Amino acid sequence: MSSKDLGITVRKTEDLSEWYTQVVTKAQLADYSSAKGFMILMPYGFAIWESIKEHFDRRIKEIGHRNAYFPLLIPERLLKREAEHFEGFTPEVFWVTHSGNNELGERLAIRPTSETIINEAYSRWVKSWRDLPVLINVWNSVLRAEITSTKPFIRTSEFLWQEGHTVHGTEEEAEREVLTILEIYRRLVEDQIAIPVLVGKKTEREKFKGAVYTTTLEAMMPDGKAIQMGTSHHLGQNFSKPFEIKYLGKDEKEHFAWTTSWGISWRLIGALIMSHGDDKGLILPPRVAPTQVVFVPISYKESDKETILQAANHIAEGLGKESIRTYIDDREQYTPGWKYHEWEMKGVPLRVEIGPRDMQSKQITMVRRDSGTKTAVPQADAITRIVNTLDEIQESLLHKARETQAKLTTTATDMKQFAHAIETSGGFVKAFLSENNNCEDNIKQETGATVRIVPLTQSEKGKCVYCGASNSREVVFARSY
Amino acid sequence: MSSKDLGITVRKTEDLSEWYTQVVTKAQLADYSSAKGFMILMPYGFAIWESIKEHFDRRIKEIGHRNAYFPLLIPERLLKREAEHFEGFTPEVFWVTHSGNNELGERLAIRPTSETIINEAYSRWVKSWRDLPVLINVWNSVLRAEITSTKPFIRTSEFLWQEGHTVHGTEEEAEREVLTILEIYRRLVEDQIAIPVLVGKKTEREKFKGAVYTTTLEAMMPDGKAIQMGTSHHLGQNFSKPFEIKYLGKDEKEHFAWTTSWGISWRLIGALIMSHGDDKGLILPPRVAPTQVVFVPISYKESDKETILQAANHIAEGLGKESIRTYIDDREQYTPGWKYHEWEMKGVPLRVEIGPRDMQSKQITMVRRDSGTKTAVPQADAITRIVNTLDEIQESLLHKARETQAKLTTTATDMKQFAHAIETSGGFVKAFLSENNNCEDNIKQETGATVRIVPLTQSEKGKCVYCGASNSREVVFARSY
Repeated sequence: MSSKDLGITVRKTEDLSEWYTQVVTKAQLADYSSAKGFMILMPYGFAIWESIKEHFDRRIKEIGHRNAYFPLLIPERLLKREAEHFEGFTPEVFWVTHSGNNELGERLAIRPTSETIINEAYSRWVKSWRDLPVLINVWNSVLRAEITSTKPFIRTSEFLWQEGHTVHGTEEEAEREVLTILEIYRRLVEDQIAIPVLVGKKTEREKFKGAVYTTTLEAMMPDGKAIQMGTSHHLGQNFSKPFEIKYLGKDEKEHFAWTTSWGISWRLIGALIMSHGDDKGLILPPRVAPTQVVFVPISYKESDKETILQAANHIAEGLGKESIRTYIDDREQYTPGWKYHEWEMKGVPLRVEIGPRDMQSKQITMVRRDSGTKTAVPQADAITRIVNTLDEIQESLLHKARETQAKLTTTATDMKQFAHAIETSGGFVKAFLSENNNCEDNIKQETGATVRIVPLTQSEKGKCVYCGASNSREVVFARSY
Repeated sequence: MSSKDLGITVRKTEDLSEWYTQVVTKAQLADYSSAKGFMILMPYGFAIWESIKEHFDRRIKEIGHRNAYFPLLIPERLLKREAEHFEGFTPEVFWVTHSGNNELGERLAIRPTSETIINEAYSRWVKSWRDLPVLINVWNSVLRAEITSTKPFIRTSEFLWQEGHTVHGTEEEAEREVLTILEIYRRLVEDQIAIPVLVGKKTEREKFKGAVYTTTLEAMMPDGKAIQMGTSHHLGQNFSKPFEIKYLGKDEKEHFAWTTSWGISWRLIGALIMSHGDDKGLILPPRVAPTQVVFVPISYKESDKETILQAANHIAEGLGKESIRTYIDDREQYTPGWKYHEWEMKGVPLRVEIGPRDMQSKQITMVRRDSGTKTAVPQADAITRIVNTLDEIQESLLHKARETQAKLTTTATDMKQFAHAIETSGGFVKAFLSENNNCEDNIKQETGATVRIVPLTQSEKGKCVYCGASNSREVVFARSY
C-alpha cells in the first residue's frame, strides 16, 4: 500500500541492518507504529506468521496439547511470588496504575510472560494424578519495554509468540516434554523456515529466570551474529512450590508437580528475512510462503488475454488440488515488469509467466526467485514440474543457509584465536569453558560474545579457552541479536 | 481438571444466572482469574472459540480480507483525536504509566478498540485509489474496565474478539461493506451457533461512539433479556478526517476516504450457553462443537474390549473422512456412567455407546444430547445415520431457539402494555417510537428497556408508544445483558 516503486537501495552484504529495514517495510511485512518501540505486523507479514502458527499448532495438538487464553494483566503480588523470575523481568514490565480516572488498589503488570498467572490457575485445576499431564499452549502477545532502538521482529516492546505451559507428575516426564518441544521447534525452523540451528542448553548466566535449565535453538545470521530461535525450559519445582501445584498420587500421597514452559515468537520471521533475502528483497521458503506461485499473464492484444488467463487458471486449479497456494496477478493498472519487481521484493518462490509466445509453444516460463533461473516447461507437465521445483527451492535454501553457517563456524583454543574470530567474521566459535562463572563473564566483557549453547551431549572435555582449566565443557560462543 | 463429580445444582428455569455460572465452570469452559474482573478461557471453551474463529476467518478471507496485528498500547494523544470516540471510551480505559521504574512521558491506553491506532497507520498506507479498498481484520483481546460484577463471556474486563477495519473510496462501497459483514455475522450466528437474531440499526443513543451509524444483531435469551451478538459500524468520514486518510482519485483529486469497523467477541459463547443448555449442562450445536460425537465403549470382560474398540475406531475413522470430529473415551479409570455424565455436562451433541450386546446385534446405540433420544443403529449404517443426526440436531436447536424467541416477542401500542410486557416475561417488545430522544430516554429510565434495533427496512409508520406522535418509526425494545 505504501509506495513500493523504489527497490532496495543498499546491498545486503554492505549494510545488513539498513537492507533489513528496507526489506521489512518495502515488502510490506511490518511498519513502525506511533507507539514508540511497537511494531505493526502488516497483512503480508501476518500471513507468514499464520503459516508458521498453523504448522506448529497442528504438531503440538497431534500430541495432546490444547490452546487456551489467560488474562493480559497480572497482579503485582502474583508476579513477585517466584523471586528470581520477578527480578529478571521487573525492569522491563509495563505497569497499569489506573482504570478510567481511578487509581488501582494494586498495580497490574502487562504480562512479560505468563508463568505466574498460569501456574496460579494450575494450582486450582490440578488435584489428582488423573488431572496430569496438563498440556496447554497460548498464542498471545507479551510486552517487555525495549530501551534500545527498535528493530522490527527482533527488538520490539511487544511481540507475538506462543507460550506453552505444562504440568507433569514426574521430573522425567517434564524433562522429556522439554526435549519433545525442542525437537518440534528444530523441525519447524529447519524443515519449514529452512534455517539450520544448533541446539543445546543455556548456561546458568543465560538461562530463563526461574528455570532449572533452559534449552535453546540458535541460528547464525550472515553478518556473523547469532539469533535465539526458541527456548524450552525445565522449571523443575521452582514454580510448583511457590504456587502450590500439588497432586494426590496413585500412592495416595501429595506430591509437588513438575512444570515446563516454552516459546517461539515472530522473531523467526526476522531470522528468515536475514537468512534468505538478497539485493532484490525477500526470499521466502515455499513451505511458509503465503503465495508460493505467482502467475503473471502477459498479453499485448485484447484477443490473447482470455486464452492466456484460461491457461493460468487451469494450472492454478491443478496446483490448488496439490495444496499449492497460487495468485494470478491480472491487475490491469500495472505492467508485467512492475509486477516482476513487486513479487521479487515480496519473495514469492516461483513466478510463472505466460505470454503469447508461450501459448504458441504450449509452454509456460518458470522463474525461480532464489536463483533467478528461467525454464520453459510444457504446459502439460506444469503441475508436476512446479511442485518439484518448489521442493528444490526449499531444499536449496536450507542447503545454502547450512553453508553460511559452516563458513561462520570456527574453533578457538586460546583467547587470541577467540578474539580474532569474533572481531573479523564473527560467527559461532566453539571452545571449552570452565564451570567458573568468571571466565564466561570476562569473555562477554572483553569480546561481547556470550555462550549460545552448551551441547546436550558432550563429546569430549578440554582446556578452558579463558583460564586454561582442564576438563572444561564444550560450548559455542557468538555475539548475538 | 477441577472436580466435576457434582452436577448442576439448580434448574435453568429457576435461576438462570446461577445455572449459567455452574455450567461455565463445571463444563470447564472458563475460570475466574486472580486478576479481578478477568477470565481464563479454558481449553474446552477455547476450542469452541477456535471453531467460531475458523469459520468466520474463512468467510472473510474468501472475499478479500486479510489479518494483521496492531500494537496493544495507544498513546493518549492518538486516542483523543476523535473526540466523541474518546469521550465514549475514556471511563473504562486501563492506563499504563510506568515501564520498569520509569514514569512514561505520555500515558498509554490499553486498547479498548483499535480505530485510532489503525486509522493512523492507514493514513500512511493509503495514497492512491490503487491502494483501496483496505480490508483488514485483527484477532486480539481488548480491555474495558468493568465496574459491575463479572459474568464469564458476558461481562469481563478483557475479552477476545475480532475487529475489522476497512477503508473505501466511496460512501456507497463503505455502506455495502457494513451490510456484507452484518450478513456474514447473521449466518455465523444462525447457521453455526443456532441462535436466531434480529438485525437492524442502533439509535443515535445506542450507536458506537464515533460512528455515523451502527448496525447490530440481537438475540433473545430464555430469561427475556436481549444480548448484542455483534456490531458493524459505518464510520463515514468521522475517522478519515481527523486521521487524514486521503487518496488521490482517478480524477487526480484528493478525497477523504470512508471507513468501517465491525466486531464479534467471545460473548457469542455466553449466548450459546444460555440459549441451548439444559439442567444437565451445556448443549453444543454440532457445527461449533469441538467434539461432535463421543464414543463410550462398554466392556465387562477383557475379551470384549478389543473388538468393541475396533468397532468404535472403524466408525470414527469413517466419520473422520466426513470431517466429523470424534473422540473415543476409552479411559480405564472412569465408569461408563461417569463418562455419560461428563459428556452431557460438556454438551457433546451425540454419544455412541457400544457394548457386548450391541456387538452381538451388530449395532450401536446413539444418544442425542438435545433430546435424550436413544436409537439402535446397524453398524453398517452408522456413518450415514450419525451424519444425518448431527444435521437434525443442528436444525432442531435453531428451531427451538426460534420458538423461544417468538414466545418472547410482543407488540405494545401504549406504555401500559409496554411496561406489562417488560415487567412480566421481558423479551422483545415491538413498538413505534418518535424521533424525539426524550421518549427513548424516558422509556429507558422508567422500564430499563432500550432500543435494541431499528429495522433496516421500515414496513410502516405508527404512533409513538411514549408520546403518541404519529409517523413514528418502528423499533424493537428489550432489557439487555
